[in-house]
Amino acid sequence: MEFFPAPLEKLVEQFAKLPGIGGKSAQRLAFFVLGLPMDEAQEFANAITDAKRKITFCPVCQNFTSGGLCSVCASPKRDGSTVCVVADPRDVAAIERSREFNGMYHVLHGVISPMNHVGPDDIAIKSLVERVAKGDIKEVIMATNPDTEGEATAMYIARLLKPFSVRVTRLAYGIPVGGHLEFADDATLMRALEGRREL
Amino acid sequence: MEFFPAPLEKLVEQFAKLPGIGGKSAQRLAFFVLGLPMDEAQEFANAITDAKRKITFCPVCQNFTSGGLCSVCASPKRDGSTVCVVADPRDVAAIERSREFNGMYHVLHGVISPMNHVGPDDIAIKSLVERVAKGDIKEVIMATNPDTEGEATAMYIARLLKPFSVRVTRLAYGIPVGGHLEFADDATLMRALEGRREL
Repeated sequence: MEFFPAPLEKLVEQFAKLPGIGGKSAQRLAFFVLGLPMDEAQEFANAITDAKRKITFCPVCQNFTSGGLCSVCASPKRDGSTVCVVADPRDVAAIERSREFNGMYHVLHGVISPMNHVGPDDIAIKSLVERVAKGDIKEVIMATNPDTEGEATAMYIARLLKPFSVRVTRLAYGIPVGGHLEFADDATLMRALEGRREL
Repeated sequence: MEFFPAPLEKLVEQFAKLPGIGGKSAQRLAFFVLGLPMDEAQEFANAITDAKRKITFCPVCQNFTSGGLCSVCASPKRDGSTVCVVADPRDVAAIERSREFNGMYHVLHGVISPMNHVGPDDIAIKSLVERVAKGDIKEVIMATNPDTEGEATAMYIARLLKPFSVRVTRLAYGIPVGGHLEFADDATLMRALEGRREL
């Protein structure tokens, strides 16, 4: 049984579809939006349709862009000889925040995951190989997540890029900065030992 | 510095305005919406503007309605001699779910709260007094929350309704069903003892 008028129930339903938003939260969000001034609610609605209409994929790195090349690919200041391969546009944002990397990106939009029926052709691997084949890229940094699927995807791509004269590297594993040794898992500790460096 | 294209940043900002949604959650929600098919995203946007445009207040009980009387006020099956006064439309939904009440409602849309500059004229008290003044109502059940402001609002309204020949009651206090005595606070236990009933 529905206790709210239909348009309100519908809005609650829409919010409830969002990841991590349960029924009670969806209700609270819908009531909040209903309480907004008309122009602010309109702005919210427009932001949704605008994002869907205007956001496309950068033809070079496949990252999100609002038309044409993305801001990284369009920048003359970035080093075109290094490409960092990530699974998701959010990973680009995370690496950009570190201000440590001045190369280009390649966004796969996923990882190879047989369990979820995602094969190599379902993510942006072909366009990466084409970029590397052009010969201007000297290093490809595999920055997929350090989990099984991210690992497998990195290995798969590294093998694909073997024929080209390009260095393929992987992000370092180790103890996270600010972490505690006693809470580190065995695999991380093993990798941290393996990857130890001269002081 | 912005790491996403402007329309995406804007969508993230809109989600971040919602109550209980932090920066990271807003990002996740915006990416989710961006990943929806165009028609589903459009449906979401429409649900927002539709709710704002179509939802109005019931002229009798001030609850949300999608035009004209709300479903409770319009129903010939409801008992018009009992009115349950609540602070919020969500409270109506909560009471309806209990299937225990067959009377009408009156939604105050807030409680008197001097701290937040909400006075008696800022909530729907006047329309309640007008309803009672018509003389058809026999009992008014004050169902505001059992906190300081809900309590004060209930007392204030009870005093206002004194001149009319109407019974004003308050929801019972006591141990919540399924609760544990040892975890009940002193005030609740005191009220539960005061309100004890013959078995």
